[in-house]
Amino acid sequence: MNEITIQSPFDMHIHLRDTEMLKLVAPLTSHTFAGGVIMPNLVPPVETKEAVVAYKNRILEAINNDDFIPFMTLFFKPYTNEFLENVKDEIIAIKLYPAGITTNSEGGISVIDTVALAPTLNAMSNLNIPLCVHGETNGFVMDREKEFMSVYEALAVAFPKLKIIMEHITTKEAVDLVKKYDNLFATITLQHLIITLDDVVGGMLKPHLFCKPIAKRPEDRDALLEIALSGNSKIMFGSDSAPHPKHKKEACGCAAGVFTSPIALQVLVELFEKNDKLENLDNFISKNAIDIYGLKKSKKSIKLIKKDFVVPAQYEGFGEVVVPMYAGETISWSLKE
Amino acid sequence: MNEITIQSPFDMHIHLRDTEMLKLVAPLTSHTFAGGVIMPNLVPPVETKEAVVAYKNRILEAINNDDFIPFMTLFFKPYTNEFLENVKDEIIAIKLYPAGITTNSEGGISVIDTVALAPTLNAMSNLNIPLCVHGETNGFVMDREKEFMSVYEALAVAFPKLKIIMEHITTKEAVDLVKKYDNLFATITLQHLIITLDDVVGGMLKPHLFCKPIAKRPEDRDALLEIALSGNSKIMFGSDSAPHPKHKKEACGCAAGVFTSPIALQVLVELFEKNDKLENLDNFISKNAIDIYGLKKSKKSIKLIKKDFVVPAQYEGFGEVVVPMYAGETISWSLKE
Repeated sequence: MNEITIQSPFDMHIHLRDTEMLKLVAPLTSHTFAGGVIMPNLVPPVETKEAVVAYKNRILEAINNDDFIPFMTLFFKPYTNEFLENVKDEIIAIKLYPAGITTNSEGGISVIDTVALAPTLNAMSNLNIPLCVHGETNGFVMDREKEFMSVYEALAVAFPKLKIIMEHITTKEAVDLVKKYDNLFATITLQHLIITLDDVVGGMLKPHLFCKPIAKRPEDRDALLEIALSGNSKIMFGSDSAPHPKHKKEACGCAAGVFTSPIALQVLVELFEKNDKLENLDNFISKNAIDIYGLKKSKKSIKLIKKDFVVPAQYEGFGEVVVPMYAGETISWSLKE
Repeated sequence: MNEITIQSPFDMHIHLRDTEMLKLVAPLTSHTFAGGVIMPNLVPPVETKEAVVAYKNRILEAINNDDFIPFMTLFFKPYTNEFLENVKDEIIAIKLYPAGITTNSEGGISVIDTVALAPTLNAMSNLNIPLCVHGETNGFVMDREKEFMSVYEALAVAFPKLKIIMEHITTKEAVDLVKKYDNLFATITLQHLIITLDDVVGGMLKPHLFCKPIAKRPEDRDALLEIALSGNSKIMFGSDSAPHPKHKKEACGCAAGVFTSPIALQVLVELFEKNDKLENLDNFISKNAIDIYGLKKSKKSIKLIKKDFVVPAQYEGFGEVVVPMYAGETISWSLKE
C-alpha cells in the first residue's frame, strides 16, 4: 500500500499548553487531527467554566481555521452537582491527577478515597461525565502504575456507571486490568508502543524520550502494542504529546514529556503497517473514541503517502522551540499535502 | 563523634581520564585517597607496558607531590604469558569490558567464553593477576547485571585460583553471588549505596546521577548498603568516579558517569555514621582491598570533622568543568585541613 486515508483521527490526550507555546504547538496537532482531548494542567489548573471557555477560545484562535475540535476537560477537584450540571456542555471529561505526580499537578488529589470523592464521582456518573485518570502512585518509578491498579479497581467497582479512562497506560498490568471491568477504558501514547526504558537510559541519556509514566520493560511495551494493534474497543490513541521548551528539556533536571504531535499519525501508520494490522488502525485512532465518548465522527480525513520524511530537528515559532520524537531521523510515511 | 581519622583509604575503581581532564580530576582523588585502581578505558585503551608506564607517569605528574599510588590496569584482550610476565610488576589487575558496554569500551570482548579466553586467564591466574570485570550483558537496562551472573559463575568455576573482582555491583543478585565463590570479590560505588533509579528518572531527569550500570531498585540498593556496612571482607570501595565535561553531561544524549571523587570520603563517613557502622568503614575503604590485592597499608591518613560542607556547584581548571554528585548541596562532614 502506498497511500492511506485516515478518517476522523482523534488524539484523546493532548497537552497544548498556553500563550506562546500554545500558538506553536496547537496547529501541529490540528493539522493532522480532527479533534483532541485537551489536558487541563495549566498554571493555574483549569477549574471553572470560565477558564474552560477562555482556554477553548485561545485554542481556537491558535489553530486559526483548522477543522479541529478541542474537547475540553476540567482539572479534578471536589465539585458540586450544580457546578457540574452547569459546566457539562463545555467539557468532555474531568481529569484526575494524584498530587504532584507530573507537570503542574501540585493541586491534584493526595488521597484517592472512593468515599471522600463519592459526591463528585456520583454526580459525574449521573451526568455521564467520564473521569480521566493519571494512574500512578508516588512509589518507585517502575512500580508506580502497577501499584495504582488497586485504585483503578476500587473506582471501577464503587462507580460502575462512571466511565473511567486509564490514561497513557504503560504496563502489562494495566492492559490486563482494562479488560476486566466494563467501565474501564484506556489511552496509549505513541512512544509507549515503541520504546522501553532502554531507549531512555540504556545507551546515552535521552531527555527527549523522558516522560511520565516512564517507559517500562520490553514485556510491557509488547503488551501495549498487542492490544493497540488488535483494535480492542476499549483502547484509544492519546498521544500525551507534551511540549517543553528545548532549553529546558536539554538542561540538567529536565521535565517529563515527549513531543509527538507532528509525526504521530505518520508513525502510527508505519507501526500498524509493519505489523500487518492497518485494518485495525481506525479503531485505535478514531472509532473506539467515538464509541466510548459518544462523539460524532468528523468529516476530516488525512491522506498519507508512503514516502520518506526527515523529521525536523526542532519546531519553532513565537519565541518557542520544541524538539519532536525522531528529530532528525527518517520515518517512512509522509502527509500528502 | 566529631572527628575521625581514616587510615590508608583506597579507591579501588577510579577513572582519571587523560590530558586536561586528568590534570583537573587526579588531584581531587589524590588529595583524599592513598591509592586507587586506575581504569584503562582511554582512547586508545591502555594495552601495552609502555602505555601503562606512560599513563602512570602522566598521573604522577598531575597529582604533583601528593602521597598517592596509582595502581595501574591493562584493558583486557588476549595476552600471551610472556607479555603478562613482562608487564606484571607494572599492573595491579586487568580490566575486562564487554564490547561497547560503557564509555570507551568498543574494543572490549564480544563473547566472554571461558574456553577461548582460557590461555590469557590461566596465565593471569598463574601469575596472580586479578581480573576486574564490568559485568553487564547488552540486555534490557534493568536486567543487564543480573543476566551477567552466569558469566561470573562460569569464570569463577573455570578459573578457581583467579581473583575475579565484580566491579561496581548494583543488584541483590550480585550481592548474593559474591558470597558464593571464594574467588569472587566486588567493588561498590558511593552512589549505588545511596540512590535508586528513582533518583535518576523518578522526578526531573538527573543527568549527573546517570551512570552505568544504572542505579536499580530500592531492594538492590538496600542489599548493597547492608553488605558494605557489614564490613564483609569481600567488598571494597570503588567509586567508579567518572568525570565527563559539564557541557556533555547536560547535553542531549549525555554520557554515563557520576563524579564523586572530591566528596566520596566525607559522604561515606556520613553514611556509615548514620547507620551506626563507623567501626566497619575501615574494612570497606582500606583493609579489604589490602587483603584481597595484597597491598601495603599506606601511612597516609585523612582527618575529617563533623561540620557542614557545601559541595561546589562545579570543579574547574585546565579548561575543563565537571559537576560533582551533591553539587550545591550540604553534606555533614568536611575534610580537616
